[in-house]
Amino acid sequence: MNLKEMMSESPYHRWLGVELVTIELGKVVVTMKFREEFLGSDDRTNVHGGIIATLADITACFAMMSETNRDAPNVNLHVDYLRMAKPDKALTATGKVVKAGRMMGIADVEIHDEDGRLIAVGRSTTVNNAPPRETLTKG
Amino acid sequence: MNLKEMMSESPYHRWLGVELVTIELGKVVVTMKFREEFLGSDDRTNVHGGIIATLADITACFAMMSETNRDAPNVNLHVDYLRMAKPDKALTATGKVVKAGRMMGIADVEIHDEDGRLIAVGRSTTVNNAPPRETLTKG
Amino acid sequence: MNLKEMMSESPYHRWLGVELVTIELGKVVVTMKFREEFLGSDDRTNVHGGIIATLADITACFAMMSETNRDAPNVNLHVDYLRMAKPDKALTATGKVVKAGRMMGIADVEIHDEDGRLIAVGRSTTVNNAPPRETLTKG
Amino acid sequence: MNLKEMMSESPYHRWLGVELVTIELGKVVVTMKFREEFLGSDDRTNVHGGIIATLADITACFAMMSETNRDAPNVNLHVDYLRMAKPDKALTATGKVVKAGRMMGIADVEIHDEDGRLIAVGRSTTVNNAPPRETLTKG
Repeated sequence: MNLKEMMSESPYHRWLGVELVTIELGKVVVTMKFREEFLGSDDRTNVHGGIIATLADITACFAMMSETNRDAPNVNLHVDYLRMAKPDKALTATGKVVKAGRMMGIADVEIHDEDGRLIAVGRSTTVNNAPPRETLTKG
Repeated sequence: MNLKEMMSESPYHRWLGVELVTIELGKVVVTMKFREEFLGSDDRTNVHGGIIATLADITACFAMMSETNRDAPNVNLHVDYLRMAKPDKALTATGKVVKAGRMMGIADVEIHDEDGRLIAVGRSTTVNNAPPRETLTKG
Repeated sequence: MNLKEMMSESPYHRWLGVELVTIELGKVVVTMKFREEFLGSDDRTNVHGGIIATLADITACFAMMSETNRDAPNVNLHVDYLRMAKPDKALTATGKVVKAGRMMGIADVEIHDEDGRLIAVGRSTTVNNAPPRETLTKG
Repeated sequence: MNLKEMMSESPYHRWLGVELVTIELGKVVVTMKFREEFLGSDDRTNVHGGIIATLADITACFAMMSETNRDAPNVNLHVDYLRMAKPDKALTATGKVVKAGRMMGIADVEIHDEDGRLIAVGRSTTVNNAPPRETLTKG
């Protein structure tokens, strides 16, 4: 399973510009450059929380896959927004496996901006024995 | 406070195409048409979870504002992904205030697709006495 | 599966005094009388949050079992404490299934006091195809 | 503020037998011996999840107080149950501040058993500028 390729085989990932820069067993680092469309408001105050949540979601999933070497769809996401992300700055998300169970797993994410400010923390449960996704859209 | 205008005064909201179709006291309905960039994978299996989380985040915030009539930035988001959202379908999110406290509030969100399938549920804490956002990016 | 009996076959449940007063398909109501040991502080200000969280945990699990008719161990719990629970008042928790999937489920809980104040809301993910619990303590 | 004394000035804490064994700036360790009443079921399979959630709740609150030196009531709790806690074993919870903001804070908790197994992870939001608790029960 080539995680770098997998990350780019997604229309939304390509639009976001997420890039998998580090892959270790149970740990990944994902970077995302700023885009003007990420802004939450026209006065350019901050990056939208949904973008931050999305980055946490992606990073948790790929952290789990770095350990399990198979698809690990998120079934939930809990994110705490700690500081507003300023415009024009890249974001870096570090994801780590907390537990990689046979059925389920938990992964943690920390998101920092270029200045080292901790923007958000996220935690996600993944399904580690999921059937192919095509079958999951039937339900 | 004109919530419909506020929803469109955000670059990310415009890109997403979110539209506030119902506003009551403590309750809003937000719709979002499908975009090809929302897809999680090139085989067009499902809408990316980050898009679903974002829709929950936005809807919780606007539900709270429909009751408090002032900004209500989310400080967290908890979303459970129940079913994968199929491509080519609009999504409808209904947000309701659970508690609108003076300092903080809680709002709930349910997201359905066009076929009435419950795609996700979300819950978010908002800050109801927040200072202007410009001051929040300083920290 | 006799849910009322199951609720009382637990040392902790008996100590808490939880009672299953309503069982419908996918919905339960659980009551819990006040105990002096529930207090968070010696000045008798409020019932401890851990007691509230516990009541949410139990109620979510039994709501799911009311629908699936089999064990449904919680794998997580998210609880928002909305108002402090005053001493000397019974608490009533209403649990409802949000989704009862084959593998996993989600249940929601609302906890009110005797005066109808909403004390807390909880949400929990259950494992709906869990092996017997004895096997789960091996890992 | 004497945190060790504060921990014991609570009827529920005394019943649980929680003990604050380490206090550093923004970090605490809390231990809890096993009690027969903690059991989730009469066949002595595991400690009840509500006990685990409670330990996470307490530890997060005291971790925050170790940094802010004032009351820090939890407004929510998110706990992931990773492994069932076996009977007859003490539990050790380590709490760390993630962010201690002026208004709110986030603290993380890890709970291990005597054998070093990671039983659960928890995360909690605290109110760091809360008025005295007496006033909070009025609402």
